[in-house]
Amino acid sequence: MEKINLAKKLSTFNDYFNPRIAGELNGQHVKLVKFKGEFVWHHHDNEDELFYVVKGSFDMHLHDKIITVNEGEFLIMPRGIEHKPVANEEVEIMLFEPATTVNTGNIENELTRKELKHI
Amino acid sequence: MEKINLAKKLSTFNDYFNPRIAGELNGQHVKLVKFKGEFVWHHHDNEDELFYVVKGSFDMHLHDKIITVNEGEFLIMPRGIEHKPVANEEVEIMLFEPATTVNTGNIENELTRKELKHI
Repeated sequence: MEKINLAKKLSTFNDYFNPRIAGELNGQHVKLVKFKGEFVWHHHDNEDELFYVVKGSFDMHLHDKIITVNEGEFLIMPRGIEHKPVANEEVEIMLFEPATTVNTGNIENELTRKELKHI
Repeated sequence: MEKINLAKKLSTFNDYFNPRIAGELNGQHVKLVKFKGEFVWHHHDNEDELFYVVKGSFDMHLHDKIITVNEGEFLIMPRGIEHKPVANEEVEIMLFEPATTVNTGNIENELTRKELKHI
């Protein structure tokens, strides 16, 4: 059993939209990821996702609004809702979601990451 | 769908060892809680728990060691492991755990909280 320091773990990688697994509990993963730029519109059929901003901020685009999520805030994205994260500047995020979650949900493209590293 | 600001939510209460529910996803709760002082030795038969320190620090006592968890760090406590949180000063914590989790686990005493408020 070891504690995890988010800043230290986040300093070990520099690529975007490529989540790492930092913990696992109750069939859920804790992931760390950096966003910069625009992701793809997608949804998850069976998974709700939590986005907690460790550093920076990003805009969660929904079809009817945009929610800006700042440092120290989280947003829960219910299953089935189309969304697209956009980060004008680099943002550091902690995700809580089922271990089954694939980052691009119902879409498979060059941004899809299926075999995540543990850090 | 609304984002949650941890500091704002944590400023709405001042009692200790009394978790509030700040979010729910995939059968899990996100809880916010303040600790100060010594909790009770306990374990959870069926739930793993995540303790993320938003502000301050605390000591997680295990039977064979003590782990100090500081701001920006998390610790996952696997089911079945006896533990006792101790906070010399006030600490603000985000918990991520199954909705079934009771704070004192296998123990029922004056610290037990079963009907948690949503904030």
